[in-house]
Amino acid sequence: MAKKKREDDVTGLLRVGAGFELAGVDPSGTPGFPGSRDEGEAALAAGATRLSELQERLFAAGFSGSSDRRVLLVIQGMDTSGKGGIVRHVVGAVDPQGVRHTAFKSPTAQELAHDFLWRVRTRVPGAGQIGVFDRSHYEDVLIVRVHDLVPAAEWETRYDAINAFEAELAAQGTAIVKVMLHISPAEQLRRLEKRLYRPDKYWKYAVSDLDEHAYWDAYQEAYQAALTRCSTPKAPWFVVPADRKWYARWAVQSLLIEALAGLDPQWPPARFDVEAERARLKALLGG
Amino acid sequence: MAKKKREDDVTGLLRVGAGFELAGVDPSGTPGFPGSRDEGEAALAAGATRLSELQERLFAAGFSGSSDRRVLLVIQGMDTSGKGGIVRHVVGAVDPQGVRHTAFKSPTAQELAHDFLWRVRTRVPGAGQIGVFDRSHYEDVLIVRVHDLVPAAEWETRYDAINAFEAELAAQGTAIVKVMLHISPAEQLRRLEKRLYRPDKYWKYAVSDLDEHAYWDAYQEAYQAALTRCSTPKAPWFVVPADRKWYARWAVQSLLIEALAGLDPQWPPARFDVEAERARLKALLGG
Repeated sequence: MAKKKREDDVTGLLRVGAGFELAGVDPSGTPGFPGSRDEGEAALAAGATRLSELQERLFAAGFSGSSDRRVLLVIQGMDTSGKGGIVRHVVGAVDPQGVRHTAFKSPTAQELAHDFLWRVRTRVPGAGQIGVFDRSHYEDVLIVRVHDLVPAAEWETRYDAINAFEAELAAQGTAIVKVMLHISPAEQLRRLEKRLYRPDKYWKYAVSDLDEHAYWDAYQEAYQAALTRCSTPKAPWFVVPADRKWYARWAVQSLLIEALAGLDPQWPPARFDVEAERARLKALLGG
Repeated sequence: MAKKKREDDVTGLLRVGAGFELAGVDPSGTPGFPGSRDEGEAALAAGATRLSELQERLFAAGFSGSSDRRVLLVIQGMDTSGKGGIVRHVVGAVDPQGVRHTAFKSPTAQELAHDFLWRVRTRVPGAGQIGVFDRSHYEDVLIVRVHDLVPAAEWETRYDAINAFEAELAAQGTAIVKVMLHISPAEQLRRLEKRLYRPDKYWKYAVSDLDEHAYWDAYQEAYQAALTRCSTPKAPWFVVPADRKWYARWAVQSLLIEALAGLDPQWPPARFDVEAERARLKALLGG
């Protein structure tokens, strides 16, 4: 019961609502979790069982056609904010059969020839699935805005386009959870430093990472706009303090559990005559 | 060391070679694993760490472009043989970001309008990925052959087509592991019975399951043909006794570990001047 209460809390504590200011969120905070790192890791392990159970019910209901409900988890954040770690340590606890994961990269020439939502639409979750976007259509109002990759008059129209798109997904039965992993610039530098001193982490480092670091304030401004203009009742944004990885993982897991519990997925009823099938089977078993 | 030795053993023990007879394989056997169920489950947990480490290296090498190697795991077996359990309990141990999973269903009208390999080609793993096929192009010489869904003259040509396709994948850098989960007909009936007495399992039961059970011998004959005609040095078949789920999971994990270890994936070298980047970072950290 204590655990359940904390999940409810965290949803309310992290949601982007009226008057939200990104600059006011402490990246090293642990809202809704008063415990230690060890307790956070224990809570994550316990939550994995609950998340996995809910996911199996959701999958069963989608598989059998008894429900069209699905979940979309959008993960955004600056480089090194821990997006991949969320996929590995939170999403990784559920059955891979029920997960549709996409890591959106720089758009290809083919993708750029279409509307910015075109490639995203091809990757939305089906009934019963948990869709996971590691980066997303929000890059089209983040990096695109910071570097003027399209004219301002164009990206300016995208906030409304995103809200319309997400409203459509919600109307189709999608519970949408959008997470921004919020780190401090100093923590980003420490994480980049780690990558430069561990040969097994070199592959995660790119020279452009430090170039981008110089645009920190412009990114925060672009996030502030996206978070406040696109946090809607059916597709809320949550800002998750992420300087402590254990907290961010627990928090995102709690948000996912809350979203799935809200759908309240049920085991589908039998689509066959149970007694008749039992009798057929009994005859075959020679009983 | 003992563990490593057993992995080597299991690859050789389960591989389909000259003179193979499916009817001679005991579905309740545990080849290469002399221990108990508890020991098997402990070995699976230990193997998950090793598999996950190898997978991360494979992913890193593919991500950075330093290697084009990849893995394709094909899972086949009669209904209830535990295909989904392999995905959940073996594949589920690795980072979802590196897995491309496909559950092939009855082909759609669009898919049927193409060659039988068309839909399969769209789902092969990219560099660094582990592709997982839950059912596969082998259905086109299994259910299709048993029920004459296409003329014999047509499915008869498919064995060569499959071998050519898999040779092409291997030449592109794909390590292919094809697994048939081998259960006994009595075990299938016991598993179907369980589904009929547990409302949380109803969704996994279909009336057609018992209808198909009547074709057991025809399926075994079709498997015998597919296993012997399509087990090649670069794309071998392995028949895994699967009446004991814990054994089948350990065995498939061992086959996957052996395949990844064979690729010997290495952390990619830095694609940048390490010292120069460390100096840039030091300046930013004010060090």
